Amino acid sequence: MKPIQVGLLGIGTVGSGTFNVLKRNQEEIKRRAGRGIEITMVADLDTARAKAAVGEGVQVVSDARAVIANPDIDIVIELIGGYGIAKQLVMEAIAMGKHVVTANKALLAVHGTEIFEAAQQKGVMVAFEAAVAGGIPIIKALREGLTANSIQWIAGIINGTTNFILSEMRDKGLDFATVLKEAQRLGYAEADPTFDIEGVDAAHKVTLMSAIAFGIPVQFSKAHIEGITKLAAQDIKYAEQLGYRIKLLGVTKRAKNGIELRVHPSLVPAKRLLANVEGAMNAVVVHGDAVGTTLYYGKGAGSEPTASAVIADLVDITRLHTADAAQRVPHLAFHPNAMNDHLDVLPMREVITSYYLRLRVADEAGVLAKVTGLLANAGISIDAVLQREADEVGGEGSTQTDLIILTHDTREGTVDDALAELQALPTVLAPIVRIRKEELS
Amino acid sequence: MKPIQVGLLGIGTVGSGTFNVLKRNQEEIKRRAGRGIEITMVADLDTARAKAAVGEGVQVVSDARAVIANPDIDIVIELIGGYGIAKQLVMEAIAMGKHVVTANKALLAVHGTEIFEAAQQKGVMVAFEAAVAGGIPIIKALREGLTANSIQWIAGIINGTTNFILSEMRDKGLDFATVLKEAQRLGYAEADPTFDIEGVDAAHKVTLMSAIAFGIPVQFSKAHIEGITKLAAQDIKYAEQLGYRIKLLGVTKRAKNGIELRVHPSLVPAKRLLANVEGAMNAVVVHGDAVGTTLYYGKGAGSEPTASAVIADLVDITRLHTADAAQRVPHLAFHPNAMNDHLDVLPMREVITSYYLRLRVADEAGVLAKVTGLLANAGISIDAVLQREADEVGGEGSTQTDLIILTHDTREGTVDDALAELQALPTVLAPIVRIRKEELS
Repeated sequence: MKPIQVGLLGIGTVGSGTFNVLKRNQEEIKRRAGRGIEITMVADLDTARAKAAVGEGVQVVSDARAVIANPDIDIVIELIGGYGIAKQLVMEAIAMGKHVVTANKALLAVHGTEIFEAAQQKGVMVAFEAAVAGGIPIIKALREGLTANSIQWIAGIINGTTNFILSEMRDKGLDFATVLKEAQRLGYAEADPTFDIEGVDAAHKVTLMSAIAFGIPVQFSKAHIEGITKLAAQDIKYAEQLGYRIKLLGVTKRAKNGIELRVHPSLVPAKRLLANVEGAMNAVVVHGDAVGTTLYYGKGAGSEPTASAVIADLVDITRLHTADAAQRVPHLAFHPNAMNDHLDVLPMREVITSYYLRLRVADEAGVLAKVTGLLANAGISIDAVLQREADEVGGEGSTQTDLIILTHDTREGTVDDALAELQALPTVLAPIVRIRKEELS
Repeated sequence: MKPIQVGLLGIGTVGSGTFNVLKRNQEEIKRRAGRGIEITMVADLDTARAKAAVGEGVQVVSDARAVIANPDIDIVIELIGGYGIAKQLVMEAIAMGKHVVTANKALLAVHGTEIFEAAQQKGVMVAFEAAVAGGIPIIKALREGLTANSIQWIAGIINGTTNFILSEMRDKGLDFATVLKEAQRLGYAEADPTFDIEGVDAAHKVTLMSAIAFGIPVQFSKAHIEGITKLAAQDIKYAEQLGYRIKLLGVTKRAKNGIELRVHPSLVPAKRLLANVEGAMNAVVVHGDAVGTTLYYGKGAGSEPTASAVIADLVDITRLHTADAAQRVPHLAFHPNAMNDHLDVLPMREVITSYYLRLRVADEAGVLAKVTGLLANAGISIDAVLQREADEVGGEGSTQTDLIILTHDTREGTVDDALAELQALPTVLAPIVRIRKEELS
């Protein structure tokens, strides 16, 4: 059988990794796929760079549409990124009847509904294992490995940049800005790190996982997103004293009245494997009603780890493309006519979780009673309190201290309202720090 | 479309879990599979138990062959276990053109070649996600998620009973026999625990993973197997002092001259996630040349976790059965005509790994020099030495002490020969303890 012919749009870090791995392991991949898989055409605006990357024998063009128009090309890999031209090209490739492989989480989290619908109508596959958690086959696990389950929740460390920064902040006791500069110097953070540190990248990924887990459309606009830029070194330290690590988690959960979809820093019990995922590594915990808790760990970014996922999709398409299109693995795990239309993404005020609160208070009698009394009146149950010595917190003779409170599960709206009341107390001297806590039990 | 009809052979723990999960989540599973999946017929020698488990509306028979002969049945689930009748029934089901799902690791590790060949000829699938690591979708990860990679090695905690025993021995400082009794009382170990504690069950599982990873036939008879029955509490303690935990690992590795395939207790650096997998949980680490290190964690046994894997296979078959049979995911990841016939499983003497050695020696001058000199002469490089005070080891006034040595990577045969020489020294007073060490880096 002649090889499957693949066209590659964009040959940067992941593109060249894909080309190299496919070439290096071509014999082994062919033995698995039952058929050769070859990148025969590459489009990149920088044709000189592209030619240097692929060498002789591969056609290099600057116009991506020449790849899409080539009737010999069976699969198009989109590695351009962003919502603009990438979206047009993916839609055009689908319209031409090509299968598409993409690592573009932003595109799918925002425009997935339109793209998957078009693919469904043309009977082509749009595969995106590389869009979430790099080389970890988490899309496959969710979409195929755990199909028996009513999935209850997913919590993941799905952004390596922020996990590297948090690991360094904890290890070295440094503040966010210092570690960010170091991360940029080492290449773990980009020159403009906004999408990573503000949680947007993680939100794209958890949006995709949410759709697959619960059979709902991708709804990035409804995700609650908080990054790590405001995280203070002292909260990492206090969390540690209470037996927790702080991680930037993407969380999606099946609640009684809808779906939770959120990205924010979270306290995680130090004994959990997820709390011990350090540096730029990724890990996703999935809890299903039958299987219980499972965890998937690996490199979430980088040239060859991401290429590993791109190529797995190429092999899947090669193996599956003869299957009845109506019967293949659906893009979002559930068949399009069986998506859930009654499960809404909840507003953040309706989310139920537990909290770490840090209050800078006047070091005087009655403050703790006042604070805990107000929380009790609001119906917020306290799990633990850590009161620091004033001298330790503000230096000798200080009249201020830190009061740290861990709550049991509470509705976020209830906490919002109580914090507004607490903040108004004259003995509360600075903005209250509130970090969510996930027990993952 | 009418539901896929499934016949179940054997309705014990996993069988009833499969029936219950399939029923409880039937709507969600149908939305994923695109088609209903129903167990319509059950065979069990204990028909009363079977009837109690499935209730009305499901045909219960005592003769498994009646299920296989039923032309309405599309898929047969084999949950009888063992090599005897289970093998006959699986072969007969294949001959009748039924797809087969099984959790029977022993059967496939020993008779897989014959079974997969028959399935290939009939164009049916034999799916076995439940055979390795229970609910963790590790077969799918290896066979589909990591297809881009030249897999370098796999190391897994793939037997929950022994991991529970080792966790308890370490936590409580108890010896093997005491903890085994406790494990039996709690239901974590069977009345006859031989297959678990002697490493046979883990060897079945790592044999299957080895075939899938490297494209070689299943070769259980060539696996090196050591259990945990001889493990002493003091070695767990010494390992801890050196920064290691002891785990029963199934290891398979691509070496220069062949494939390593082995099960034995191993020292694992305490900082690795794998070392922190406690109790009856399972975890498998896979290292691929492109993806780097990935880890998969979850429940390796139990009614519903195993059912999760059985049902995932049912959904896969439902999704894939319209695909060109020649093009489906191959049973052992590689297409049958592309299996590797030049990669042999290495004899244990050819395995290269590192070692923990414990020598009970006379507490006198020159012993350490003698021992290390002998190792140096054999070409065995030492990584660390821990010499205990004689008083601590043997009580006050003791004339004996323990010498613990960690080696760098060495060929096992070289170590065998050196240990024979060491054992013959008059200052070595007891059988030398040798435990392998895997850095997993």
